[in-house]
Amino acid sequence: MADGRVYNFSPGPSTMPLEVLEEVQRELVNYKGSGMSVMEMSHRSKEFMAIAAEAEQNLRDVFAVPSDYKVLMMQGGASLQFSAVVLNMLGTKSKADYLVTGQWGEKAHKECNKYGTGQLACNTKSSKFTTIPAKAEWKLDPEAAFVHYCANETINGVEFSYTPDVGSVPLVADMSSNLGSRPIDVGKHAYIYAGLHKNLGPAGMAVGFLRPDFADGSKELKICPTYCSFKTTCDNSSMYNTPACFTMYVMGEYLKYTKRVGGLSYWAEQSDKKSELVYGVIDGSDGFYQSAVEKSARSRINIPFTIRGGDEALERKFLDEAKKHKLYSLAGHMSVGACRASLYNGMPLEGVATLTDFMKCFMDENRP
Amino acid sequence: MADGRVYNFSPGPSTMPLEVLEEVQRELVNYKGSGMSVMEMSHRSKEFMAIAAEAEQNLRDVFAVPSDYKVLMMQGGASLQFSAVVLNMLGTKSKADYLVTGQWGEKAHKECNKYGTGQLACNTKSSKFTTIPAKAEWKLDPEAAFVHYCANETINGVEFSYTPDVGSVPLVADMSSNLGSRPIDVGKHAYIYAGLHKNLGPAGMAVGFLRPDFADGSKELKICPTYCSFKTTCDNSSMYNTPACFTMYVMGEYLKYTKRVGGLSYWAEQSDKKSELVYGVIDGSDGFYQSAVEKSARSRINIPFTIRGGDEALERKFLDEAKKHKLYSLAGHMSVGACRASLYNGMPLEGVATLTDFMKCFMDENRP
Repeated sequence: MADGRVYNFSPGPSTMPLEVLEEVQRELVNYKGSGMSVMEMSHRSKEFMAIAAEAEQNLRDVFAVPSDYKVLMMQGGASLQFSAVVLNMLGTKSKADYLVTGQWGEKAHKECNKYGTGQLACNTKSSKFTTIPAKAEWKLDPEAAFVHYCANETINGVEFSYTPDVGSVPLVADMSSNLGSRPIDVGKHAYIYAGLHKNLGPAGMAVGFLRPDFADGSKELKICPTYCSFKTTCDNSSMYNTPACFTMYVMGEYLKYTKRVGGLSYWAEQSDKKSELVYGVIDGSDGFYQSAVEKSARSRINIPFTIRGGDEALERKFLDEAKKHKLYSLAGHMSVGACRASLYNGMPLEGVATLTDFMKCFMDENRP
Repeated sequence: MADGRVYNFSPGPSTMPLEVLEEVQRELVNYKGSGMSVMEMSHRSKEFMAIAAEAEQNLRDVFAVPSDYKVLMMQGGASLQFSAVVLNMLGTKSKADYLVTGQWGEKAHKECNKYGTGQLACNTKSSKFTTIPAKAEWKLDPEAAFVHYCANETINGVEFSYTPDVGSVPLVADMSSNLGSRPIDVGKHAYIYAGLHKNLGPAGMAVGFLRPDFADGSKELKICPTYCSFKTTCDNSSMYNTPACFTMYVMGEYLKYTKRVGGLSYWAEQSDKKSELVYGVIDGSDGFYQSAVEKSARSRINIPFTIRGGDEALERKFLDEAKKHKLYSLAGHMSVGACRASLYNGMPLEGVATLTDFMKCFMDENRP
């Protein structure tokens, strides 16, 4: 643990590899002898264009993006993408299907109804977003413009362990909180998007991988703000207007680091190990810690849990004492309360081991 | 000049005060003993909420924002604001007026036509955006939902030296490239917005000052993306979703610096001095350097100029030789070519003096 740093289990913005932060710090005032900070560079300068091009190439390399797919980098996070997806992909159709397995999928679905009909192919709200129904239960409409799913629900801790098979209807994924945590099959999707601030960098950008037939504007609604246009973004290599340059640069550094440590298969292995450690303690706690999520739908990334059946005083005590062990940001989302450990790539295995050691001690000391 | 740093006349992203960059650098890996970088902090954390609240308060202080006005911080830059203005301010009206005095005003106007009728109250395109017509020539419609103007045209170098008087019709200003360069009368505007990356911080955010009657959603179109909703942004103190946290933090540092040096009156004085130096050389060059803009409409911030009547070879030579004097990013916008000096707050007076000394030498050496 570097001097004074803590283990930060924040759901995002989230902990980043120290090496990446240190490199950004070194270059902050004068980037590679350019005499400027990256923050100060014209986005049209030779230096910055190289940074942007390298970042895009590294996205392509790390995520094995098919060469005909477009890479988009836009501001506004996944929330603006909720609208952009519909505004760019609805075309002449009037409806789209949504697999709603958590609060983010729910928000994406709601946004669709501004421009068409968002159909609920499934919705697990009644069971408090703790499952992923089997495919046989999904109501898929072959006439839907697309099928949208949220690959990992950050708040509820529900993760698809597979790519949904939706036949020939274009598949759209919000991968905000698990992109980067395992290899994915981009080619099975018409569009994948993700906010940056989990496994890719600071908050303030989203990346997208788009099948080329959605990049030509043919399915764009006329009311689509120019900023949100996939065609405009693609035609201008994500520089229709000034991009979030510094954010893009930090993402590039994080991607280079990802390549150095071994790419997505390395992160997938880490992710499995880290989440198994935490679920191991939960499952071995005889109900002291509880995860509400069905085992097959458990997220490797965000693990919400309650303590002694939702004893709020004890949960507060847990969060307070955790800080003494340098374990921070373990509170659950404000809408659900309790605790949550988010295990993004920036969180080292020893941080998770420190957490699980603490969880065990806390349990021993606080059993009734 | 700090070790290795250059004078960077970029139109934005643009040069920042070294003190601000150095402070950001110091705190990058561990912000004030929190054990985290600001990049890694949950936006709901106590530490970051304090950073955001302080940044908003400093915007209010520095720009003397009336207390009932809302302060908005959104991603997507001014380009997304072009749409957001219309989507939030058109209401039941069908038309809005635009004073078009340059390429950015033109883009804003074009965006209006997606949702209603953007009327040209004036348009100086035919004279290549080099003037601001007198008020008597404006065609203002008392039934317009608002009147939009771009206070400073970054590409064309045209700046309003006054607040346009448009009677009771709500006035909207894009102040992207001169916000922060002089005191302004926020109360005369229904909405002021600006991208950050000129006088306020890195690229990746816009700030807005909004009259409260436009913050209640009563004039929001139903098709407005939730992310773009002024009401949603205001109701959630600019944290409807994860904001561009690090960008917001750097803006806060820049605002604190602005307060320390003396606020907007200090920057206004600097701005006058710096622009007078450059225009002095241009006007005293007997046509060697030329500014196409009418004197009354000249920008203090962005000064486009040609050399020897637009001699491209000589302009290239100028740009090349300038670098030997550590003078960078002096090329004109790709749409107009030639040269441009952008004199944002981060550019110190001695940088401009170095530029004008060079301009004089270059003129002496290259007169026919």
